[in-house]
Amino acid sequence: MRIHLQSQASTHNFPLSREDWQAACTRAPDVSAGHEVTFGDTREAFEAAMRTAEALVSQTQALADLLPFEAPHLRMIYCTSAGLDRLAPWERLPQGVPVLNNRGTHAVKAGEYGIMALLMLASRIPACTTAQREQHWGGLHGTSIGGRRATIVGLGALGGSIAIHARHFGVHVTGVRRTPGEHPGCDRVVTSIDDALDRADYLVLAAPLTQATRGLLSRERIRRLPQGAGVVNIGRGGLVDQDALLDALDDGHLGGAVLDVFEPEPVPPGHRLWTTPNLVMTPHTSADDKATYNARSLDIFFDNLRALQAGQPLPNLFDPARGY
Amino acid sequence: MRIHLQSQASTHNFPLSREDWQAACTRAPDVSAGHEVTFGDTREAFEAAMRTAEALVSQTQALADLLPFEAPHLRMIYCTSAGLDRLAPWERLPQGVPVLNNRGTHAVKAGEYGIMALLMLASRIPACTTAQREQHWGGLHGTSIGGRRATIVGLGALGGSIAIHARHFGVHVTGVRRTPGEHPGCDRVVTSIDDALDRADYLVLAAPLTQATRGLLSRERIRRLPQGAGVVNIGRGGLVDQDALLDALDDGHLGGAVLDVFEPEPVPPGHRLWTTPNLVMTPHTSADDKATYNARSLDIFFDNLRALQAGQPLPNLFDPARGY
Repeated sequence: MRIHLQSQASTHNFPLSREDWQAACTRAPDVSAGHEVTFGDTREAFEAAMRTAEALVSQTQALADLLPFEAPHLRMIYCTSAGLDRLAPWERLPQGVPVLNNRGTHAVKAGEYGIMALLMLASRIPACTTAQREQHWGGLHGTSIGGRRATIVGLGALGGSIAIHARHFGVHVTGVRRTPGEHPGCDRVVTSIDDALDRADYLVLAAPLTQATRGLLSRERIRRLPQGAGVVNIGRGGLVDQDALLDALDDGHLGGAVLDVFEPEPVPPGHRLWTTPNLVMTPHTSADDKATYNARSLDIFFDNLRALQAGQPLPNLFDPARGY
Repeated sequence: MRIHLQSQASTHNFPLSREDWQAACTRAPDVSAGHEVTFGDTREAFEAAMRTAEALVSQTQALADLLPFEAPHLRMIYCTSAGLDRLAPWERLPQGVPVLNNRGTHAVKAGEYGIMALLMLASRIPACTTAQREQHWGGLHGTSIGGRRATIVGLGALGGSIAIHARHFGVHVTGVRRTPGEHPGCDRVVTSIDDALDRADYLVLAAPLTQATRGLLSRERIRRLPQGAGVVNIGRGGLVDQDALLDALDDGHLGGAVLDVFEPEPVPPGHRLWTTPNLVMTPHTSADDKATYNARSLDIFFDNLRALQAGQPLPNLFDPARGY
């Protein structure tokens, strides 16, 4: 098969290297032999490869920057991200070619980040880092997290993993997702965020960014969280009214926030985010384990290639209409 | 029995209130009835009470500020801290009166803080907060904590609780304590810190400050940690050569640190601690759960009062010679 791997030049992320590919091949000997493989990080390399490629493996931002394109022989597009919102509008992609994401890559790291963020809110770390910036020794006592209440919006691989960790620490977890039903990490599952705001000590956003979720955590909903509540966002910056969130940190309605995603990214120097109190920011790294990211992504690619060759459903098929 | 509760006026900690006492009495009806109880937060109130008191319950710093004192009828001194190093030298205390600490109060919160700090080091939160202070969006990718190596110095209530959490996340834990033997949170236990430095991704100090442990993490030992390692200190500032630790953060030998204890405390404005990179500081709050601190302390006091009245060994007896 003709397989092309496209990376972004000078990226902060993890370019797909020949070493990553070779290592993944040795882990999937049944499906990795006999292919003709190319690597590229320029438009020229991409366009040349697309004349004959049957499978494309690409960093998502690299692909977004190359749209639209023609690839008459292409049978699958595999992106090394879980959220593919930056590829929209979808008409720019070759029609009829299945698009896949790498969901399954992020659960372990995102789960650890999520429970870390909840523990940080309980120990008032966002307030401590603000006091540290101001060289102020304060009486910032927190609490144990056991018995506190967390609402987790999105129970996919990320939110589900956080919920299971939270329950291990005795947190009372309410999950919010589109379809009702139990979840092993949740004490209860609801289908509307409006049923899980009023008593939440902590709110975690772990949902994809879709037309249905943009602006989900609105100014009005932020005000319905209890005084002193904390917010974690590992989904996308667009899930929340960011200015309303920063206002609520400024005026003390929220006790703290741990945010991994923003609008825009990168956050430019001088933006009010940098100086908002009681806020810890990470640069969109919550779900990315640099030690394993490309290895897991390529293992999942081979799982899907195996399914394609066997004529079976593709486990990581992305649904543009649904948005995940 | 004549019982006096002494607190510190204008403290950042948790003064012992009449409400705390009443609530604890209802939880220990067998041993809490029939006492004559006083409360104070001044030297005058303390000295008046000590003329007749048989049991003293005191915030530790409050007591340290009142030494020496006379109390001819005193049968027990119960301090609402685990580490009583600030009461030394011990000759200033009434001789022959057992001194007790509140060990058992801190394990839950300290365990949560400890695993939080390890997760923060894995996710490079100390580097992220430095970048945030500098308004710099960086490619600060961390890793999952599973499979990483942590050395935990001290396997009492605090260190033991951290070890058990760490193992839950798949961390390879080496414990360091004076006496050999297995521990349920540790893959191995050694009796010298020198056997557990060279391969430690993270080093956690959770030991009491004694003559044997002062300066334990010396400049030379810090340099024996691997490049990029992280340090957590929830014991006492005096356990570590603080300037050597800050030098190792400044020059990048250490990847990050999460510190809850310092010399001196409070850390004064202008101290180099405040501006050292890749460091998250909390104001000696790691083990203190404001929601439960006095309740747990007083429950433990009644456990010991019950033992005293039954002529049994006191579970929380403090050994000044050993230092814990």
